[in-house]
Amino acid sequence: MTVTQPPSPLPETPAVLVDLAVVRRNIARFQSYADAHGLKVRPHIKTHKLPPVARMQLAAGAVGITCQKVSEAEAMVAGAPEIGDVLITYNIVGAGKLARLAALARRVALSVVADSEAVIAGLSATFAPEPKPLAVLVECDTGARRCGVDRPERAAALAQVIAASPGLVFGGLMTYPPAGGAAAVEAFMVEAKARIEAGGLAVPVITSGGTPSMMQAAEAPVTTEYRPGTYVYNDRSLVERGVCGWDDCALTVLATVVSVPAPGRAIIDAGSKTLTSDLLGLSGYGHVLGRPDIAIDQLSEEHGRLVNEGPIGLAVGETVRIVPNHACVVTNMVDAVYALDDGRLERWPVPARGCIT
Amino acid sequence: MTVTQPPSPLPETPAVLVDLAVVRRNIARFQSYADAHGLKVRPHIKTHKLPPVARMQLAAGAVGITCQKVSEAEAMVAGAPEIGDVLITYNIVGAGKLARLAALARRVALSVVADSEAVIAGLSATFAPEPKPLAVLVECDTGARRCGVDRPERAAALAQVIAASPGLVFGGLMTYPPAGGAAAVEAFMVEAKARIEAGGLAVPVITSGGTPSMMQAAEAPVTTEYRPGTYVYNDRSLVERGVCGWDDCALTVLATVVSVPAPGRAIIDAGSKTLTSDLLGLSGYGHVLGRPDIAIDQLSEEHGRLVNEGPIGLAVGETVRIVPNHACVVTNMVDAVYALDDGRLERWPVPARGCIT
Repeated sequence: MTVTQPPSPLPETPAVLVDLAVVRRNIARFQSYADAHGLKVRPHIKTHKLPPVARMQLAAGAVGITCQKVSEAEAMVAGAPEIGDVLITYNIVGAGKLARLAALARRVALSVVADSEAVIAGLSATFAPEPKPLAVLVECDTGARRCGVDRPERAAALAQVIAASPGLVFGGLMTYPPAGGAAAVEAFMVEAKARIEAGGLAVPVITSGGTPSMMQAAEAPVTTEYRPGTYVYNDRSLVERGVCGWDDCALTVLATVVSVPAPGRAIIDAGSKTLTSDLLGLSGYGHVLGRPDIAIDQLSEEHGRLVNEGPIGLAVGETVRIVPNHACVVTNMVDAVYALDDGRLERWPVPARGCIT
Repeated sequence: MTVTQPPSPLPETPAVLVDLAVVRRNIARFQSYADAHGLKVRPHIKTHKLPPVARMQLAAGAVGITCQKVSEAEAMVAGAPEIGDVLITYNIVGAGKLARLAALARRVALSVVADSEAVIAGLSATFAPEPKPLAVLVECDTGARRCGVDRPERAAALAQVIAASPGLVFGGLMTYPPAGGAAAVEAFMVEAKARIEAGGLAVPVITSGGTPSMMQAAEAPVTTEYRPGTYVYNDRSLVERGVCGWDDCALTVLATVVSVPAPGRAIIDAGSKTLTSDLLGLSGYGHVLGRPDIAIDQLSEEHGRLVNEGPIGLAVGETVRIVPNHACVVTNMVDAVYALDDGRLERWPVPARGCIT
């Protein structure tokens, strides 16, 4: 284990620690890969929700940020005026959100996505009277079966609808690919691009995302931009998939043992309100650093249950550090994280936490 | 369906709605049962985290509230000075938390639990110089295998340790029972009480909890007090267990359809950041009111995927109301809920949200 030890005094537990040396290394690693392959990087801020980390990503070469909700973008831009370019990879629906979107578009270069005529109509009605048109990308379903048009011909049709809509310009194509989906992305996007260009429109951006397959992003050479999120912190799900090692995990949860009620069981003060119930296909709720023999087999809201085969070897009052299954959702649970940098621990509020609208 | 329809204009979605008429009915139902059986009620505030709802519970006859963390108790007492009696059902460990506990004990009648000599030692060191002793209950494991001493003789031994510790008084016995555990609670507590009394100590309180078996609380007549939490809102897990009906569910998530990308699939703007990944043994992430044919089969952070066998019958921009699997954890995701009362919708901040320390 070469994971940095946090300095004393420790914050009250449970606490979310972010090791900035690891963050910097993670940012640099993907930026180098992207630079080598001519890909633009537009990190998804859902993982950190922190303006200072967005600043680090921009300083390393990112072209802008990705957000999922309007309120996330509002919080990030308010916290880091350096952010000049935001893509919201979401169908924005509803009068309140559209009005906020228009206000945001007056402050930064803004683009959004759409996968239906209904969404495009709402965007157009809002942006027709605006001084600057809104760039709208077509969201494409390349296999994840969430949002998105599922055929290149439908992407081409929506591109034409966008281009013909007052207040909008066609901004390109966006996808969140399925696992290992570079081939699927390439096949879909090459055909969609050809159809759109045949219709007389340029396709300025083709953007894909996802940390698990980011180091294969260049296997879909049609892609111009990549939106990794979790890569900035990494987590247990990525270690278990072989994407990185424990030393690459920047976010850990510091917890205190509050009970050792049986020889092979200890209870910590971090439960689902900190670690969350996200399993991401794994067994157990996190990895106790330095103790691969321990499983976190059960969470209630404020208790985490640690079990092993033999004596658990932990005492009341001891602390453990846990790499959670899923870093992004842990960030969303806390009002602040503790940034660990060069032996110092600093409390950083998380302004984009809880931004669901 | 007799679920109250929310008035217009609706809040931006996703939004957590709380129907106060249902809340009042849920509070009254268990208070009546408890009154009829001579049980005191000490609701666990983890479900609502709202001072005004604690006030409703106290007005109905509750003797005080239950919290899991010191910070929850601090937030609740600050928000509702009527709260004069707080039980924190947690081993409090660490200098920072103990200092805050002592400060809180100067404002309200406070009790906590302990299941080890180590926890008792920390409490005693803190409270020995305080003007008022702290009541400490022994946490007993009656089958849930979380915290707690697992044998009545060990409970009796810890009662003596508490009674002999400067600054502390023995406050009784506490358990969070296993499913359907009234018989297990009765067996454990009767023996523990006899042993403690044989040692010359009185057992002023025997407190149990849990909404699923609350209407069988009287089957453990040794119990003096009950701590239901979820009963105030109810949720899908309780409906599926047959504990209540959909009309008894006070908390719902209002969400907007943002995509209908395939005939049998719709995507809503509520994902795991609102509904959470808690499954509680169920399949799917919630119940769409009025649409039992729909399953919420997948969540990502900001998307919920609704699927059914036939055409989904939803359009972009339509709203749905969802009863989540687990109400308590949904409350913890949002800065505010929308209280629905007599045709009015009012935004209520959630002061005890995110209180993990």
